[in-house]
Amino acid sequence: MDTSLHNPPTAEDILQAAARIRPYVNRTPIITSSTLNRMMGTELFFKCENFQKVGAFKARGATNAVFSLEESQTVHGVATHSSGNHAQALSWAASLRNLPAYIVMPKNSSPVKISAVKDYGGIITFCKPTLAAREENLSKVIADTGAIEIHPYNDLHIIAGQATAAAELLEDIQDLDILLAPVGGGGLLSGTALSAHYFSPKTKVIAAEPEQANDAWLSFTQKKFVPSLHPDTIADGLRTSLGTFTFPIILEHVESIVTVPEESIIRAMRLVWERMKILIETSSAVPVAALMDGKIDVKGKKVGVILSGGNVDLDHLPWIK
Amino acid sequence: MDTSLHNPPTAEDILQAAARIRPYVNRTPIITSSTLNRMMGTELFFKCENFQKVGAFKARGATNAVFSLEESQTVHGVATHSSGNHAQALSWAASLRNLPAYIVMPKNSSPVKISAVKDYGGIITFCKPTLAAREENLSKVIADTGAIEIHPYNDLHIIAGQATAAAELLEDIQDLDILLAPVGGGGLLSGTALSAHYFSPKTKVIAAEPEQANDAWLSFTQKKFVPSLHPDTIADGLRTSLGTFTFPIILEHVESIVTVPEESIIRAMRLVWERMKILIETSSAVPVAALMDGKIDVKGKKVGVILSGGNVDLDHLPWIK
Repeated sequence: MDTSLHNPPTAEDILQAAARIRPYVNRTPIITSSTLNRMMGTELFFKCENFQKVGAFKARGATNAVFSLEESQTVHGVATHSSGNHAQALSWAASLRNLPAYIVMPKNSSPVKISAVKDYGGIITFCKPTLAAREENLSKVIADTGAIEIHPYNDLHIIAGQATAAAELLEDIQDLDILLAPVGGGGLLSGTALSAHYFSPKTKVIAAEPEQANDAWLSFTQKKFVPSLHPDTIADGLRTSLGTFTFPIILEHVESIVTVPEESIIRAMRLVWERMKILIETSSAVPVAALMDGKIDVKGKKVGVILSGGNVDLDHLPWIK
Repeated sequence: MDTSLHNPPTAEDILQAAARIRPYVNRTPIITSSTLNRMMGTELFFKCENFQKVGAFKARGATNAVFSLEESQTVHGVATHSSGNHAQALSWAASLRNLPAYIVMPKNSSPVKISAVKDYGGIITFCKPTLAAREENLSKVIADTGAIEIHPYNDLHIIAGQATAAAELLEDIQDLDILLAPVGGGGLLSGTALSAHYFSPKTKVIAAEPEQANDAWLSFTQKKFVPSLHPDTIADGLRTSLGTFTFPIILEHVESIVTVPEESIIRAMRLVWERMKILIETSSAVPVAALMDGKIDVKGKKVGVILSGGNVDLDHLPWIK
């Protein structure tokens, strides 16, 4: 069996990913809020990936990637560099298959995230907080251990895995007019766009991005890759650049990208906490901020929103100085 | 139709309450957590009244009380004194029937709660923060308006309404060994105990209370009413004394009451936020604290936990100084 993918995931690839990860991940609930519906003048369906294993959709892609490896490929474990949810997700997914996971993390990563990775059994190498240092250290770890790299988003198995969140939402809620997701590296967004394309072609996929990390918006509107050079956003999951796999899928299947200011992200996060009584992380608040700010015409429509994760440092909330 | 109750609610009263409030309140979800199950060595089922209308189980009792009034009784509206969730719940429930709700609130009530009561249309009279001032002001408001008093817990319609939360849980999850609820004035606890007695008699109901507001524990163990004189707990919903209706039901149908220290309440609250990604208020954390501290023998058992509410002042979290 050749388990590698060379082209954008097909409908069949996404369905296979769903079957592959089903024993391990949660089929997360879909929540509605009459208050938010009233505020936005629309019917909202929130896909709660904050209730996913490891607290974020990243568990889906990581599990699909780890379980897509052939036995022979797993001998030396898996590796990545990440300061965020992918580090936890890969450590957790590798542990399901009893594989070592080597995680390169910038030494200024939050203590909460470091300890979560350790709890899931990840083997951490700390490095300077620059992309160059992260890549260099990862290369060294791979050379030393023989582990296989699992990229956080620019990997077709990761994309197929992330696509399963939207596939579930579209299966549970028929005839969505619009489906919203945040965009960082584009793993979730490209997967979401593919699922809509295959399983609910009338649903338009719209992405939301922080104004202060607007590389995906720039790339999308200019139709050429623009890297994320100086992202300065509280939405720490959305600071990365698009990838060579994710960008073309997004260009082809995403309807539009809208951007939101920092203060709206914080207000939207608090709104969801206060009114829906669920914890979402800053990145998840970005599409809600777009709705709150009226950036998307949703009046009278059926709108799905992927709440990407709920991993928050409870000692430091953005609205408490 | 005589809609007044004179004896503890019967099974039929609770079923009627459930039918009466069904058009208005949420059938709240039941959530599980593999992490908490592992930590406690048991199988936990959380009834999420934090997702209830107005953010707490109080919506059930208030709706039942308001809709149990005969037309002739409603002419002058309803009234209560409350600094907490009952104030919001009664304002909201009264608005469903287009009745005025007169709420006497201590002037040091949190701004969040005051504005929530106003949002639901409650007409507030502020008073000094003493029980005497609250009762005196309520008497005056009732004399002036002719409104009917709806007591927060010592009211048989309120008890029957609160009982519906446990009734739903016991319908959805069969064969619970233990069912946990917090105890303040005892409205939720007495209703929970009655529902278990009628609908799942093998289920033992255990209450949890803050050590620093242990009047229910004292009353229960001494089998005579002990008032809550100097409650000093962060669990602000649990500072009240038991009532003349609630105490006898609790004495008869509750298995035991356990108490927990303040620091455990805070740790339990944070644990639920962090691991379950849902907001619960301090009072809801008290039964979780009892589990966390090993105060109840739950090993290998099926345990229901009523998470009573999720109304939190997000500007002031107890673990952030």
